[in-house]
Amino acid sequence: MSKIFVDACFGKSTPYTPVWMMRQAGRYLPEYMEVRAKAGNFLNLCHNPALACEVTLQPIDIVGVDAAILFSDILVVPNEMGMKLDFIKGEGPVFDKPIVTEDDIDALLGGKEVAERLTYVYDTIKLVRAKLADDKALIGFTGAPWTLATYMIEGQGTKTYNICKKMMYSNPALLHKILAKVTEVVKYYLEKQILSGVDVVQIFDSWAAAIEPSKYDEFSWRYMVQISDFIKAKYPHIPIIMFPKGIPAFLDNIYGNFDVFGVDWSTPMALAKEKLGERYVLQGNMEPCRLYSKEATKACVESLADTMRDGRHIFNLGHGILPDVPVENAKYFVKLCQEVSKR
Amino acid sequence: MSKIFVDACFGKSTPYTPVWMMRQAGRYLPEYMEVRAKAGNFLNLCHNPALACEVTLQPIDIVGVDAAILFSDILVVPNEMGMKLDFIKGEGPVFDKPIVTEDDIDALLGGKEVAERLTYVYDTIKLVRAKLADDKALIGFTGAPWTLATYMIEGQGTKTYNICKKMMYSNPALLHKILAKVTEVVKYYLEKQILSGVDVVQIFDSWAAAIEPSKYDEFSWRYMVQISDFIKAKYPHIPIIMFPKGIPAFLDNIYGNFDVFGVDWSTPMALAKEKLGERYVLQGNMEPCRLYSKEATKACVESLADTMRDGRHIFNLGHGILPDVPVENAKYFVKLCQEVSKR
Repeated sequence: MSKIFVDACFGKSTPYTPVWMMRQAGRYLPEYMEVRAKAGNFLNLCHNPALACEVTLQPIDIVGVDAAILFSDILVVPNEMGMKLDFIKGEGPVFDKPIVTEDDIDALLGGKEVAERLTYVYDTIKLVRAKLADDKALIGFTGAPWTLATYMIEGQGTKTYNICKKMMYSNPALLHKILAKVTEVVKYYLEKQILSGVDVVQIFDSWAAAIEPSKYDEFSWRYMVQISDFIKAKYPHIPIIMFPKGIPAFLDNIYGNFDVFGVDWSTPMALAKEKLGERYVLQGNMEPCRLYSKEATKACVESLADTMRDGRHIFNLGHGILPDVPVENAKYFVKLCQEVSKR
Repeated sequence: MSKIFVDACFGKSTPYTPVWMMRQAGRYLPEYMEVRAKAGNFLNLCHNPALACEVTLQPIDIVGVDAAILFSDILVVPNEMGMKLDFIKGEGPVFDKPIVTEDDIDALLGGKEVAERLTYVYDTIKLVRAKLADDKALIGFTGAPWTLATYMIEGQGTKTYNICKKMMYSNPALLHKILAKVTEVVKYYLEKQILSGVDVVQIFDSWAAAIEPSKYDEFSWRYMVQISDFIKAKYPHIPIIMFPKGIPAFLDNIYGNFDVFGVDWSTPMALAKEKLGERYVLQGNMEPCRLYSKEATKACVESLADTMRDGRHIFNLGHGILPDVPVENAKYFVKLCQEVSKR
């Protein structure tokens, strides 16, 4: 059965423009909070295929999106490379021994060996695939090497990224060594996600905006392109979505063999269309806070539909949905996107 | 005596391109840390003109910058409007009763009455002016109404700005009421800074990037322009620097009667020059983390000098200097900017 979401990723004509939301399996859903409480903590939920499958499917049933996205966390990758990970309440993820030296990165596992350890992810994918309707797509994902490296070097989330950026400017060879090692893992990780049943993959460079534009290619984009080249060569039927958050000043320099460019909300869709619309399908990009108001949601969805009327588009938010958004408003957004774009 | 920094703000020819650094009176200087320890805490230091004067002058003497910037904090404004403010170690500024309703904003003081309460700021300016060399400039400043409003509404720093943005999309009239009231205060506050002796004023919109581009004019830029119009009508000899951080996608929409546009590091200087260089002097924009490495500093300063060789420029960082930067590297940056641009 043809999946409208996959067709749209390849720029084929579809009956309407499909829609999903970043973080759609998340805290705004009471049903998610129930499962998460059952799991005990966030990392347990990632490690439990039955529960992870349940929350992956929730937004399909409850909110009506056109694609499910695997429930997991980008940090399972460095975790399985050998870095001990905790999610501390109110603080977020913490690695107890961040990478400081070349020995630290050499000591971590790499490549296929790491990919093979992420069995709970592949088990989740298989469970979801068995339960998901044939016309709905399942999106697999990974963090971009740069975004993963920021956590591996800082040990946690950061406002200034000063430890990684000190490395970027003072010891770029070490940063490249980390990025290259993560890139190798991620290639095989995405491959195994595909072999387990995902229909599409998205690479999240959530902290893209931490890099100055003149250095973005060197420290992030080229690694993302290495990954997409690897996947495209072996699995050309799997669409690849690139989502580098917050780089409107870098749009002129985007290149690579992938299908969909995820536009964040700081980049006007008209600008993205002008710079990239000929080469890539565009995904996005409603400001997630507009979901607090149906009126603000409607104005944006109609404007996006108008901008993309003669373009190739997938509706989404321009960043993750926030925990305090009313579920009713999320449903309204999804339905409106599907209706406004009916042909 | 003519001040090279003021001349450069007006786009006049100068013997070299002047330089200063955002947060130059700050924690990277051991001499600053000594004075701060003496003051007890950050807010005490803002309230003590003798000590605030001392730290304002330190970077002139120690680092060799061409302009001093008044040592103070943007949050003294809402504090004197009547909002109780604390700086909590490790958490930053906290207002104990954030603005929730129209009554909350109505209950605050406004306009000239607030400006008149900020006597410690004007006393600091007078002390600095008396001690500063005649050829050095003193920069006064304020937070932009939007940036101030984010703290007044969230009660503290925020990653998501979800409370203010809920207001932006659900109750824009209330947000405009807050912004208008802050704007009135800031007009008189800058006027009194000028009457006390500052040579230049800068408006910091540190959280500009929190607003989607299509809403930036409505909720921030137009209020900044109201302030600059008020100041320019009465004090045309005082240059105004606008610094909205992180809005490369909004550059096409910049307008207003001011002199210098502060370019943050996420916007390539060549792009800012193309879009704004005919109308405004450009200030900036080295990535502050480049200060960790002399080599990375040199490459950037030379590239900026090259880009701006036929333009009107003031050297600066593209955001504040970080606390763990070696003082020696800051001195190197300042000297290099002055030398590389000698005519």
